[in-house]
Amino acid sequence: MAEPKENVLMEKITSLCKRRGFIFQSSEIYGGIQGFWDYGPLGAELKRNVKELWWSTMTRMRDDVVGLEATIIMHPAIWRASGHVDTFSDPMCDCLLTKKRFRADQVEPQTGVAYHFKGGANLELLVRLVEKVNTNPAPNQIEDIRANRNRISIKLSQWRASEDPNMRNVAAALDVELSKDKSVLSVEPFSVLLQPGKPPESARKVAAQFYALRGIQNTELQEEQTEKIELGHPLAQRFNPENGSLLTPPVPFNLMFKTYVGPTATEADVAYLRPETAQAIFAQFKNVHETSRQKVPFGVAQMGKAFRNEVTPRNYTFRSREFEQMELEFFIKPDEAVEAIAGKVASAAEAFGVSPSGGPAEPAKAGTPNDPQPNWGWEVWHKYWVEERIKFYEGIGLPRTTLEEYWQKPEELAHYARACVDILFKFPFGTQELEGIAARSDYDLSQHERCSGKAMGIFDEELRTAFGKLPPEKQTELKDRYYAARLKYLTKMGVPAAEAGAAAQEDADGLAKGQYIPHVIEPSAGVDRLILALLANAFTEVTETDAKGKSETRVVLKFHPRVAPIKVAVLPLLKNKPELAAKARAIFESLRGHMMAFHDEAGSIGRRYARQDEAGTPFCVTVDFETFEGIKDGPQAGVKDTVTIRHRDDGKQERIATGELLPWLLARVK
Amino acid sequence: MAEPKENVLMEKITSLCKRRGFIFQSSEIYGGIQGFWDYGPLGAELKRNVKELWWSTMTRMRDDVVGLEATIIMHPAIWRASGHVDTFSDPMCDCLLTKKRFRADQVEPQTGVAYHFKGGANLELLVRLVEKVNTNPAPNQIEDIRANRNRISIKLSQWRASEDPNMRNVAAALDVELSKDKSVLSVEPFSVLLQPGKPPESARKVAAQFYALRGIQNTELQEEQTEKIELGHPLAQRFNPENGSLLTPPVPFNLMFKTYVGPTATEADVAYLRPETAQAIFAQFKNVHETSRQKVPFGVAQMGKAFRNEVTPRNYTFRSREFEQMELEFFIKPDEAVEAIAGKVASAAEAFGVSPSGGPAEPAKAGTPNDPQPNWGWEVWHKYWVEERIKFYEGIGLPRTTLEEYWQKPEELAHYARACVDILFKFPFGTQELEGIAARSDYDLSQHERCSGKAMGIFDEELRTAFGKLPPEKQTELKDRYYAARLKYLTKMGVPAAEAGAAAQEDADGLAKGQYIPHVIEPSAGVDRLILALLANAFTEVTETDAKGKSETRVVLKFHPRVAPIKVAVLPLLKNKPELAAKARAIFESLRGHMMAFHDEAGSIGRRYARQDEAGTPFCVTVDFETFEGIKDGPQAGVKDTVTIRHRDDGKQERIATGELLPWLLARVK
Repeated sequence: MAEPKENVLMEKITSLCKRRGFIFQSSEIYGGIQGFWDYGPLGAELKRNVKELWWSTMTRMRDDVVGLEATIIMHPAIWRASGHVDTFSDPMCDCLLTKKRFRADQVEPQTGVAYHFKGGANLELLVRLVEKVNTNPAPNQIEDIRANRNRISIKLSQWRASEDPNMRNVAAALDVELSKDKSVLSVEPFSVLLQPGKPPESARKVAAQFYALRGIQNTELQEEQTEKIELGHPLAQRFNPENGSLLTPPVPFNLMFKTYVGPTATEADVAYLRPETAQAIFAQFKNVHETSRQKVPFGVAQMGKAFRNEVTPRNYTFRSREFEQMELEFFIKPDEAVEAIAGKVASAAEAFGVSPSGGPAEPAKAGTPNDPQPNWGWEVWHKYWVEERIKFYEGIGLPRTTLEEYWQKPEELAHYARACVDILFKFPFGTQELEGIAARSDYDLSQHERCSGKAMGIFDEELRTAFGKLPPEKQTELKDRYYAARLKYLTKMGVPAAEAGAAAQEDADGLAKGQYIPHVIEPSAGVDRLILALLANAFTEVTETDAKGKSETRVVLKFHPRVAPIKVAVLPLLKNKPELAAKARAIFESLRGHMMAFHDEAGSIGRRYARQDEAGTPFCVTVDFETFEGIKDGPQAGVKDTVTIRHRDDGKQERIATGELLPWLLARVK
Repeated sequence: MAEPKENVLMEKITSLCKRRGFIFQSSEIYGGIQGFWDYGPLGAELKRNVKELWWSTMTRMRDDVVGLEATIIMHPAIWRASGHVDTFSDPMCDCLLTKKRFRADQVEPQTGVAYHFKGGANLELLVRLVEKVNTNPAPNQIEDIRANRNRISIKLSQWRASEDPNMRNVAAALDVELSKDKSVLSVEPFSVLLQPGKPPESARKVAAQFYALRGIQNTELQEEQTEKIELGHPLAQRFNPENGSLLTPPVPFNLMFKTYVGPTATEADVAYLRPETAQAIFAQFKNVHETSRQKVPFGVAQMGKAFRNEVTPRNYTFRSREFEQMELEFFIKPDEAVEAIAGKVASAAEAFGVSPSGGPAEPAKAGTPNDPQPNWGWEVWHKYWVEERIKFYEGIGLPRTTLEEYWQKPEELAHYARACVDILFKFPFGTQELEGIAARSDYDLSQHERCSGKAMGIFDEELRTAFGKLPPEKQTELKDRYYAARLKYLTKMGVPAAEAGAAAQEDADGLAKGQYIPHVIEPSAGVDRLILALLANAFTEVTETDAKGKSETRVVLKFHPRVAPIKVAVLPLLKNKPELAAKARAIFESLRGHMMAFHDEAGSIGRRYARQDEAGTPFCVTVDFETFEGIKDGPQAGVKDTVTIRHRDDGKQERIATGELLPWLLARVK
């Protein structure tokens, strides 16, 4: 549970976002749609800046990464290969009474006394049935039933096993009637957790409702038993906290949005909205590799929408159903290939001067360049990308102190993953994941090779040459290791032993000839949660007391200039002075082609500064009388054509020559 | 049908796009998915450039447009209000024999002889039924049936109406049996168009297959009739061209992709993937208006994915199922408000110096600024936006001569539209729409106001003041016109007369108080078709003969530098000269922060130029020996630290000082 203070902060952020046009609820005029959020004018610019910076950092500024833009709807076989069709699901259960659906693992565990029932019976209808099947019922039959009204099934079993053939006939005839008329007896078990402070009768009432819904009126509850439920009991999460009713057993609910492509809507036409952008990169790996003239190691970057039908979207835009991802798949040689080429795979200590023992990567030692080296294996590449990504966050205004690294424990890792680090941000509602950086081995490409039947491996001339020069025992060692890794994967995927052995052997022989399926490091970030982190980090309240002693609290969004939606606002000190207005307009026009600029003439200069502070604009440029008359005093006294630059974060002002304004700004906002 | 020559060109473009990584088929390794295309590294950059230019032209460089980024999945009520749920559909029909689905309006019209049948009967089963219901059937009954084997229904009618009560009883008993056993007689009519050159028996065979599918074996066809079908006959498009079978009557097939939001998948959870980005702008109009400090006239721009489940995706990326739009909704005052404020609504002639009579807008006369004026009504605003959009296309390298304007005829317009212009491009497969610019009146916001119950109108202080100062007769005239327009809309939407009249009166009274629902001009462009237009326009084949007399044809993509994926390639003349390589690398590093640059050392300089020509890179910068040794001859002889700039389109080269390179390039690529 979030602290009340933190909820207040989230409420303030949400309210500001709506008031200033950062974020609106989707479809608000129709009551909204849960888990969907729109970006207003300022939010759209903020998001564009973040995406543009990611893209340019990842692709334009690197020699070894190219971009891709794939579709949201892809062939459904992709999601079978990736495992999403089978396993991308949450366990769901329904209340047996109200049908309300719950995420099974999020039902609040409960303790107390459970009332178990083995069924329900309508006694009078049952008596009538006995009379019907046995036109001269012995009085003791009816009495027997009435006396055992709460253990009818046991009684009927006794009749069926009776030594009296007449009794057995009555039982058999009764069974036929009961199978025809479902309003007499239900043998469906049901349980109720007695709500705290309520009498046992309330539990029985809930059970009676359950059997009434199944057609049994005036229910006699069958074979009541009670059981104490404590935390950790298998049933502790199996009752509806709202009414005590038993829930259905958990059933997996796939989180992919499903649709149908083409004019018919048959099972063959099913398609999914992608739940992640990554898979398209794997599916197009060969096309990109063949057309981009890149050699492994190299990466493919993609940004775009993804969709997850979250059962409980929450925390504002943090966990929404439609969101945007920025993902890189960085393809590397398997360690055996690196070793063949470079002689030895570098340890993290050798590459960065840090302990390779699973702990968080630390900045490289002075003098140790982070430039990729041919002897880097997956471990170093993984640490390299963790470090690169943290640098990115620092570069857009999230200091390292606001972030945490969480290194997944071996038992938390997916079977194919070698390592996974979550970069967490301290959100007002808790410390949560911004980005995951996973070393995924060659699992993804291998899966697509197996499922599509198309070769996903590459030929590496350098490896072929190097391998041929290795001493035979080294060749054998590397081939054996590669064989073992491939065999492990194939076996895990259920390939029969003989087939898997042969395939792994083929892969190992291929390695010696320069062939392998690349391994991958995947830094995967969420745009929307990053936007939320930037908003939370930038949100600052400032309380000021005016000349009249009246104090006012207002918001300053201290965005890094690189991500700020508006980079500069150009303001004439007074609106009604034509020369000020014209000069401000001219400056604005000279800047807007280079950055998002804003021009504002309305209201006092203080109010206009405050409006820009709230929008997160780092710089305000004011054209005032000194612009024309020359600086009044100080070392620059008399100098004309200067403007005031006012800094958002501390309110400090400085004067600068108009002609120097553009480079001054560009140096700070790019 | 496209000309063969044009198909060849499309094939060349498609092939180049795949080979160079502009466009790949989505999910290619799984056989693809029809109507979905991915952008590879070069294509992704091309698309980013186009979108960035649209966004900056539409928002950053304008005072009167702000951006929005809404979700793809919105509340389904939005699509009911917009009319998409009811009317966004294609007519579909199925072959009654094979179930194959056709777009009804795209079935090729056919002529010939239609064979109509009123049903099919299994004669022997029928005889057996007659024997069953009438244990002593008169021989004439059986004979009667056999004699009328092709008009069974007529015969049975006669029996039912017979004066002989025994006959009537037999008929009644037979009807009961026939209703139980469906394998005896079908009275479902069916038709076959006789395939050209085939004997009538072939039509009968098709019909027999039809009745066999419905359970009638050894079919006797009932009441055969023939009919001549000529072009224009209502049945001309109702036969499957592949087998002559009748098609089902056309049924509307909604083109929106449907999905379910939330953990249950009931009708209440249905949602759609947006078929256009426009509606989100209308739904968020009030939020944007209230938070952006914009006043009408102003616009809201949005780019993003949209989805249409096209029955027959075609022409490469031109008509795909997942595509991207760039849409502007530009909100303007109703003409009555403009007239109240400005005294008179400007005609197109007054605003631009052109005839206002519906023809295409022409460039403004010299000295007639295109800057928006307060007296512009919808007609001038519409023409303004047509002109602005054409200028945009010209600015990214599509000359006016490659474009056509198509002004929709009054009978083609939607009932709410005042005008609509399609900007067409001459694609290799035909002249097709790039963008539509529609004057949509106040229809969209009015619909959302009616359907959501939330007020979508705005208050305009300037109008309120101006209206109060008008002479009473002018007030009445404007109110009457506004009343008439609102009444027309409300009536068209099926609002009962009395209610519509009262509502329109309220609207007219509101106008006098400064209130109205803004009208809208909508320039709506498709990103993917624009990319295809740019590719088609840039595609050039150059045939060169080398020194050995061998001639080779290669491709040059003559993109405008603004959209070219790579702006500049920096190449050392020779790879193995360290000083050339280092200098080239340093120049590349100095440029890449400012534009997409490429560095290439591999292969002969000629081959590297050719590779860049094929990628559409407008400029190659070569570092050669003269860079170090000084220019050999000419007026600049001896000058050092210069590079060669080689122009893609004509192969011409010029030398420029390294220090001047960045501004030289920026001036050409921005």
